[in-house]
Amino acid sequence: MKEKATSFDIAHMAGVSQSTVSRALSNSPLVNKETRERVQRIAKQLNYKVDKNASNLRKQKSNTIALLLFEDPTTDDSLINPFFLNMLGSITRASAAAGYDLLVSFQNLDDDWHAEFEDSKKADGIILLGYGDYTAYRDKLAQLEEQGTHFVRWGAKDNDHPGISIGCDNYQGGYDLTRHLIQLGKKTCAFIGDAGGHAPEFLARYQGYRQALVDHGIAVDTFLRLDANSTDEAGYNATQTLLNTSSPLPEAIVCASDLIATGVLQALKENGYRVPEDVVVTGYDNISISAFTTPALTTVQQDTRLAGELLVSSLLKAINKQAVEDYLMPGELIIRESCGASQHQA
Amino acid sequence: MKEKATSFDIAHMAGVSQSTVSRALSNSPLVNKETRERVQRIAKQLNYKVDKNASNLRKQKSNTIALLLFEDPTTDDSLINPFFLNMLGSITRASAAAGYDLLVSFQNLDDDWHAEFEDSKKADGIILLGYGDYTAYRDKLAQLEEQGTHFVRWGAKDNDHPGISIGCDNYQGGYDLTRHLIQLGKKTCAFIGDAGGHAPEFLARYQGYRQALVDHGIAVDTFLRLDANSTDEAGYNATQTLLNTSSPLPEAIVCASDLIATGVLQALKENGYRVPEDVVVTGYDNISISAFTTPALTTVQQDTRLAGELLVSSLLKAINKQAVEDYLMPGELIIRESCGASQHQA
Repeated sequence: MKEKATSFDIAHMAGVSQSTVSRALSNSPLVNKETRERVQRIAKQLNYKVDKNASNLRKQKSNTIALLLFEDPTTDDSLINPFFLNMLGSITRASAAAGYDLLVSFQNLDDDWHAEFEDSKKADGIILLGYGDYTAYRDKLAQLEEQGTHFVRWGAKDNDHPGISIGCDNYQGGYDLTRHLIQLGKKTCAFIGDAGGHAPEFLARYQGYRQALVDHGIAVDTFLRLDANSTDEAGYNATQTLLNTSSPLPEAIVCASDLIATGVLQALKENGYRVPEDVVVTGYDNISISAFTTPALTTVQQDTRLAGELLVSSLLKAINKQAVEDYLMPGELIIRESCGASQHQA
Repeated sequence: MKEKATSFDIAHMAGVSQSTVSRALSNSPLVNKETRERVQRIAKQLNYKVDKNASNLRKQKSNTIALLLFEDPTTDDSLINPFFLNMLGSITRASAAAGYDLLVSFQNLDDDWHAEFEDSKKADGIILLGYGDYTAYRDKLAQLEEQGTHFVRWGAKDNDHPGISIGCDNYQGGYDLTRHLIQLGKKTCAFIGDAGGHAPEFLARYQGYRQALVDHGIAVDTFLRLDANSTDEAGYNATQTLLNTSSPLPEAIVCASDLIATGVLQALKENGYRVPEDVVVTGYDNISISAFTTPALTTVQQDTRLAGELLVSSLLKAINKQAVEDYLMPGELIIRESCGASQHQA
């Protein structure tokens, strides 16, 4: 290989200083158009490549966003839940659109992820995404703040840490769904999904469901709340339990996720129950399969595309020392046949 | 903040040298278990963090794999095709399992991506993934090799560049699908999907379809091949064209992807055709929705989980100067109702 051209060679040929070459190659407005184009043309002729890593180190910028993905320890670790997979795609897209690469790193909430990036120059800021109860990890968030690490997280607003949360209004989504079923005349509604402390999204959906019942004078029957993590298998098994313990079957089954709901539909079908005639079923998330199940699922859409854009744009604001506001995205009720809507309404 | 502990502090407290501390903290087998555990315990007590970036720079390793994702310029750039989204998830998982972070970067095949990583210390190696005809980019692959960049790519074997390709046998998949339809008695089979040079995966599927017809003495009717990129909308539109130009309708429609097939099913339904009674339809990829369409789609499964694992393990072999073999994964024929299988067979 012949020796590589340096910025000195280019400066010599273009008749400008090395710093002008550097500015011209980074499209700095400080260099006039004509000079910029001359420098860029010569650089191209010489097959000159900017050492971006060195260049960014000088600017103390990596042009990289780190995405820490937290596992749901309760589900098969070979798969990514479709909602988070969509978020991964959306965040990747939004980062690229902003000119940033995305460094994806799986983490366990119990690990020392809060310290991992303290001295690292790998990324300019961090997006925290995944299941899990961050309330148990307040100390780690506080340490990130103390370190001056720029970060935002996917989740509901945390009053102890304002300006770092982009999330979806799971409470309102659960409320809207359940109110819709009550308005359709359903008086007994089961809820399938883990409503424990380590699943705050599901818990908020449950609390919305519960409040809708209370507001409409319907007693909350704790026997109609069944745990399930976000898999079709868990939904299937919870439905078998419900069929064994509840007679008659409730008129509606509110599921904490679409994946759970697909398992519920399967179990009902195998046991000879018709949806929506015998029992109506709803999901949550509007993942791609929910429009294709038989019947198609009524659900709440979380706009993952917008979510990715908001997470990235908020993080870039933080990196640029601008104020970031918490944002709770509204969920959108998507009504399909599984709650009795006709195909024409869907 | 109090002053940070250094490796010297730990060495002093543990009664060992600084290099032993360094080795112990990177779990080197050169340090015996007892010493390693003592050093690690003290490091934890002092809240000592290894500066991983500095440590890796010394080792000239980033512990990061770069994934260059190439766009399909023909489809909506706000979305990632579900097959590639699954691959993204699978590669992220496989990287994490190997202890590597994944740096995801969107690229355009026409850009200078082959030079981008030449001097970069951001990643130890590169995975190339996406649509596109790499035969037009042989020079860039050759340059990567010349630079000594470690890389593997998703795609069929390239005889000019052995040992860099992990792919799926799209030709055999197209052949198997079509032979299955012929064995079901279908004599006229349309093919919907772009079989041009810039879509080599679709082209290989078409070639397999074509050879199956030829091998069974069925004439290839070029009017029954319709272009479509990999969207349901394109499948829908191609079907409308087919309905306008072909009378009677062919007995089978072979689609180059499941997304195309969902649009085909929709168009047939709207025009009053029953699947599989009036016409049978097949897809390709086995994305998640294909099991849920009405009727469920016969398709060819590409094992994205295995693909991600093979891409990562092959790249790590290359990084460690071990030989890498090309690998062409077999596709698996998944028979469902859309080609006339009963539900019990599915």
